[in-house]
Amino acid sequence: MGKAPHPLSQLSAEEFTRARDIVVKLYASAQTLYFRQICREEPTKESLIPYLEAEHAGTLTAETPRPARHARVEYDLQDGHKHQVVRAVVDLDAGIMVTSHTASAFNFPYYVVHEFMRFQDICMASDLFKEAMSEFVLPAGFEVTIDPWPYGGQDNLQDPRYMQGLVFARDAGKNHPDTNHYGHPIPIIPVMDWLKQEIVRVDRLATGGLGDGLEPAPRGDEPKKLFEKTKSAEWVPELLDTPVRSDLKPLNVVQPEGASFTIQPDGLVEWQRWRFRLGFTPREGAVLHDVCYENRPVFYRLSFSELTVPYGDARPPFHRKQAFDFGDGGVGRMANNLILGCDCLGAIHYVDTLLAEPDGSPSPSKSVVCLHEQDNGILWKHTNFRSGKVVVARSRELVVQFICTLANYEYIFAYKLDLAGGVTLETRATGIVSVVAIDEGKKSAYGNVVSPGVLAQNHQHIFAARIDPAIDSYRDTQVVVEESQGVKTNPETNPRGNFYEIRRRTVDKATYVDAEPRLNRTLRLENPRKKNPVSGKNVGYKLVAPATQLMLADEGSIQAQRAQFARHNAWVTGYRDGEFWVAGEFTNQSSCEGGGVGDMVRRGDWFTDDGRPDGRPDGGANGTGGESESESSGCGRRSSPVVWPVFGFTHNPRVEDWPVMPMEMYQIHLRPSDFFEANPALDVPCTRNQSSVLVSGCSADGQACGSVQRDPVVHGQGVAGGIDAKAAGAHVA
Amino acid sequence: MGKAPHPLSQLSAEEFTRARDIVVKLYASAQTLYFRQICREEPTKESLIPYLEAEHAGTLTAETPRPARHARVEYDLQDGHKHQVVRAVVDLDAGIMVTSHTASAFNFPYYVVHEFMRFQDICMASDLFKEAMSEFVLPAGFEVTIDPWPYGGQDNLQDPRYMQGLVFARDAGKNHPDTNHYGHPIPIIPVMDWLKQEIVRVDRLATGGLGDGLEPAPRGDEPKKLFEKTKSAEWVPELLDTPVRSDLKPLNVVQPEGASFTIQPDGLVEWQRWRFRLGFTPREGAVLHDVCYENRPVFYRLSFSELTVPYGDARPPFHRKQAFDFGDGGVGRMANNLILGCDCLGAIHYVDTLLAEPDGSPSPSKSVVCLHEQDNGILWKHTNFRSGKVVVARSRELVVQFICTLANYEYIFAYKLDLAGGVTLETRATGIVSVVAIDEGKKSAYGNVVSPGVLAQNHQHIFAARIDPAIDSYRDTQVVVEESQGVKTNPETNPRGNFYEIRRRTVDKATYVDAEPRLNRTLRLENPRKKNPVSGKNVGYKLVAPATQLMLADEGSIQAQRAQFARHNAWVTGYRDGEFWVAGEFTNQSSCEGGGVGDMVRRGDWFTDDGRPDGRPDGGANGTGGESESESSGCGRRSSPVVWPVFGFTHNPRVEDWPVMPMEMYQIHLRPSDFFEANPALDVPCTRNQSSVLVSGCSADGQACGSVQRDPVVHGQGVAGGIDAKAAGAHVA
Repeated sequence: MGKAPHPLSQLSAEEFTRARDIVVKLYASAQTLYFRQICREEPTKESLIPYLEAEHAGTLTAETPRPARHARVEYDLQDGHKHQVVRAVVDLDAGIMVTSHTASAFNFPYYVVHEFMRFQDICMASDLFKEAMSEFVLPAGFEVTIDPWPYGGQDNLQDPRYMQGLVFARDAGKNHPDTNHYGHPIPIIPVMDWLKQEIVRVDRLATGGLGDGLEPAPRGDEPKKLFEKTKSAEWVPELLDTPVRSDLKPLNVVQPEGASFTIQPDGLVEWQRWRFRLGFTPREGAVLHDVCYENRPVFYRLSFSELTVPYGDARPPFHRKQAFDFGDGGVGRMANNLILGCDCLGAIHYVDTLLAEPDGSPSPSKSVVCLHEQDNGILWKHTNFRSGKVVVARSRELVVQFICTLANYEYIFAYKLDLAGGVTLETRATGIVSVVAIDEGKKSAYGNVVSPGVLAQNHQHIFAARIDPAIDSYRDTQVVVEESQGVKTNPETNPRGNFYEIRRRTVDKATYVDAEPRLNRTLRLENPRKKNPVSGKNVGYKLVAPATQLMLADEGSIQAQRAQFARHNAWVTGYRDGEFWVAGEFTNQSSCEGGGVGDMVRRGDWFTDDGRPDGRPDGGANGTGGESESESSGCGRRSSPVVWPVFGFTHNPRVEDWPVMPMEMYQIHLRPSDFFEANPALDVPCTRNQSSVLVSGCSADGQACGSVQRDPVVHGQGVAGGIDAKAAGAHVA
Repeated sequence: MGKAPHPLSQLSAEEFTRARDIVVKLYASAQTLYFRQICREEPTKESLIPYLEAEHAGTLTAETPRPARHARVEYDLQDGHKHQVVRAVVDLDAGIMVTSHTASAFNFPYYVVHEFMRFQDICMASDLFKEAMSEFVLPAGFEVTIDPWPYGGQDNLQDPRYMQGLVFARDAGKNHPDTNHYGHPIPIIPVMDWLKQEIVRVDRLATGGLGDGLEPAPRGDEPKKLFEKTKSAEWVPELLDTPVRSDLKPLNVVQPEGASFTIQPDGLVEWQRWRFRLGFTPREGAVLHDVCYENRPVFYRLSFSELTVPYGDARPPFHRKQAFDFGDGGVGRMANNLILGCDCLGAIHYVDTLLAEPDGSPSPSKSVVCLHEQDNGILWKHTNFRSGKVVVARSRELVVQFICTLANYEYIFAYKLDLAGGVTLETRATGIVSVVAIDEGKKSAYGNVVSPGVLAQNHQHIFAARIDPAIDSYRDTQVVVEESQGVKTNPETNPRGNFYEIRRRTVDKATYVDAEPRLNRTLRLENPRKKNPVSGKNVGYKLVAPATQLMLADEGSIQAQRAQFARHNAWVTGYRDGEFWVAGEFTNQSSCEGGGVGDMVRRGDWFTDDGRPDGRPDGGANGTGGESESESSGCGRRSSPVVWPVFGFTHNPRVEDWPVMPMEMYQIHLRPSDFFEANPALDVPCTRNQSSVLVSGCSADGQACGSVQRDPVVHGQGVAGGIDAKAAGAHVA
């Protein structure tokens, strides 16, 4: 195998630079390139599966065919007046560009960090902006601070690439760089034409309350004094009115023998019986590839795909407040550089990545992903009430976490693998809620007043994950919808009325599936060619995802059209290489979901003969990732299913969400369901944790309180392979 | 205040004995008493509120009126042929019995541990049982083991108090007391008449598969050889076929300065800004009383109320497999005696309780509740992308946990208080799923084959909690149903279609409320007399509870009738003293939900004038816990609302649930919503955890792997009150 990188490993700095150079040499010096992204282009499934199968079978040799090593290079080409957005794939070994797509004139690329950072300067220099600001008088010492935002869904489909700014003021008089500007919103939104590099318009914002209508009040004759009654909204400890609390005693996670996981330079992570390859992309952040348990594949790829945040304020231009945080910016590009002892506890490994500078050179971004283990309470327990024997195993999880900051807001994403064969996808939302100005003393139907003069608008966070399953095979996964349904009392099948029926329906073709807790509707990922030797049923995993509210914006609205994925709780589509984007590749200023999951369904891919549009059986088709199958003209093709769970929460802000909100967490679980022949965590040792200590209660006189004691006899002794509750002074039933 | 116990403190051993003696002296020596339960009888709300108000105001003196100190004593009275079930309340100070209720002849009491333990002996001695067992031949060395079970919902309403047994065999040849009998089910169910103390019937069980009908096969002429192909189902480590895994490295939770909470001898727990009184009852386990934040009341009482487990196997007598684990036995009575280092990690305080022996003497049960702190990841984080400043606070929780074992199964209950003002009620289900025999090689519509010849039947776990709110006052809580609803595009209120509306409806009278995730339907607990000074809205808490499936048994079935609470996702009823039981006080062999939440709703209590049946306003009524109000004849009374969330899961067993299932967790959250004037966790220090260490990746040559390193410079330095991501080598946007 020599030195060749694993097909799923990230680009090295050398490969990164080579990819850039392959592109650069194709252009003349008069042509300007503005690089947005350089990263590994994933191998096609068709080319990768044989490689992975050989890898897991232990038959990999130097002769095993390897997928070509490709990189994806995204850049703007400026050639005189011509401005093109190019996504190219280059072959790193051959040193050539393999494919190149130029985006249509109205598919606008995401913003990169360097673009966001230029907005404020351009704005501050603008006469239009200065004129708009002249409506207001800021208190002494306040300075304008502008948050660049994607423009959102445009009203005029001929609009050029715009950016908008949310305008605030910061109390610079406090002489601290982190005084919080979000507590002082200014009711204007400047709009910048990105090609012209100038502010073309400044929208004035309504600041009224209930009954005040949709339009901003007319501009007065006199400048309006702002922030006479607003309060500071500090979140940085040294700026708080009172010192931080001192009575929260340290809690340390200590692993005296180190971590139980290992990670190889090429991204291979091994932990307990799991192994996977950790990827990272500028748009998605951390991605898990080739997730296997005991060398049996479970998931070909796990990722978060998109996140849209539509705001419910009816007053224009707030209908354009709708972020697509993956497509408009990229959560990998915006990933925090994590810091030891802050973002995880315990024994932590950090993973770095490379991001592209505008000239295409690699810029190291340190510690964008952390891996660590954590304890999640009791995993399983049983007591033999006759003998007093207790066995209790704790739940250990391997956490792969990354965090992104999007101006005011942060998201924390995690994959958690557990000892019972489960994988959890977790999101936490925190940061500063997006606010606008409201006249003092008023209330609003559009949000909640979280500070005097500050309205936190109602909005939703709707996420989609992408699950590319490989249930005990890279080739044969099917999706089954399972429901538990009550049955009317009847003498034949349900004489006492207690029977309920499990109904199953294979998903035959691309579709959506809505949640129905009343039926316990569950998506199962199954391999119909592999039976569990105990139950005789298909080996499988089930998706456990609490039902959450879908897009509230009216179906015909631009908000809803741009995020059709948010209209259903889950989608099942046919696999296509490189198709990772639930709302389409180009979300920035999109007016509909071009290439998104709605389009994927409409093309009509099918998974079984029953789903085939012409009704004819496939013959020898075996569903090998959908790539080797016949394609019926315009009617999709036979393929393997990809599942897109949609989840999130409707966020009608609370006062408690200010100035930084406590996290709101959401988890979806992938759990083995007849994948194994028994509880896979049965052999987790139940040794007593020797570092736990007893805390005494307070004495009756109130003097002594909370002293700590190690392992007194009254609380029992661990015995080999379990605990004897009787010896431990237990009351045994 | 002297030595008088706090009104909410548990009974001391001396009080316990005094309570018993007050009862004993009322009876002649020929009368036999069989004590089931002795515990504190909670004060009436009317008597307790003024005391709590004085306590929180700091005005408590020796003269403050104290609620009478009462105990509840439950016992059977055997007087010749008369057998009565008595629930008495005694006044511990006055030394007298205050009230005494004798249950109707068909209200059967729960089983106590001593009763459960006698069942097997009576069964083994029974000729009927021996005769039934003669149908089978067990392998050499196997011994019969019988699990006592509540009889369930009876077909014949005149039935006496029965108990049924699930019969298994244990491989005693392995010479280990903990070989698992559940892997060897025998298809008979003996039924015992508890008064006669004899087995009166042995039901034969069907063991067929798909299409085999509802009835057991006729008894053959020859004894049937059992367990020729069954496999062992061991869960005790020393009996496993392979040794436990050795590669899970220790993970310790260490609090070098001890725990941040204190607990007083009278049960007062203080942690951060929370304080509450920890109670424990034989039926409910741990109960939280008078939960306050910064001395503002939030909850008068938090508890788990009931748990029903109906089985979906249509074949009689499995329709009687329906446990009510609180009412039939009591999760406090069955509480595990927890062991240091097993059930919690870190610095742990354990609480003991007293249970009643049959003679009424107190039997200490050690360590039935554990209290400890745990870390729950990031609570809030924000990065100022301009300056690189990062502040990240971790989520610390105080966990109050107890665990019960109910023969084969265990439940883990927890209350978790957090730094953001939230309380989570958590249940975890684990233990050994209930199984019956199935003919080898067959599959079933009633469950899953988890081991050869072993069918784990489909069933549901449906819990109810009880929330008695006291939102910033003991007197004024209202319940509001809030929904977020889409609005059709229209020029007046929603020109761009993105607006959505928050609709609110006060719950005026006792009712149920079903979940509707499509509308984000949320129950809010609000105080309409206290406004949040920032938002101007009612101070409140919201209940966040993912929608789960309700009772599947047909509405007219006995299973459904016994558990009417399980037909809706939440109930709101009028407060009455001592009314803690969502499915009624007597669940054992119940045929309907007498006194349960359905009856509570039907009596028509109301909370606002709009809910009053006669439509007349209440005048000066102030809703002080519902006790001081007028009662309209047969039409309920004005009262304060109690909320009963219903939740759980439909458990169609997986092979992975065998032989001991990995826990299934469910959480409901109570979150402040305009209760505070800002994020209450804003002052949580964001100091870096100094004990966290870096884990290195493996070297390229695969030699070095996972070495541990402390706090290298590249990962940054903590600075006072936050972290400078720039100094920490961060890539700053």
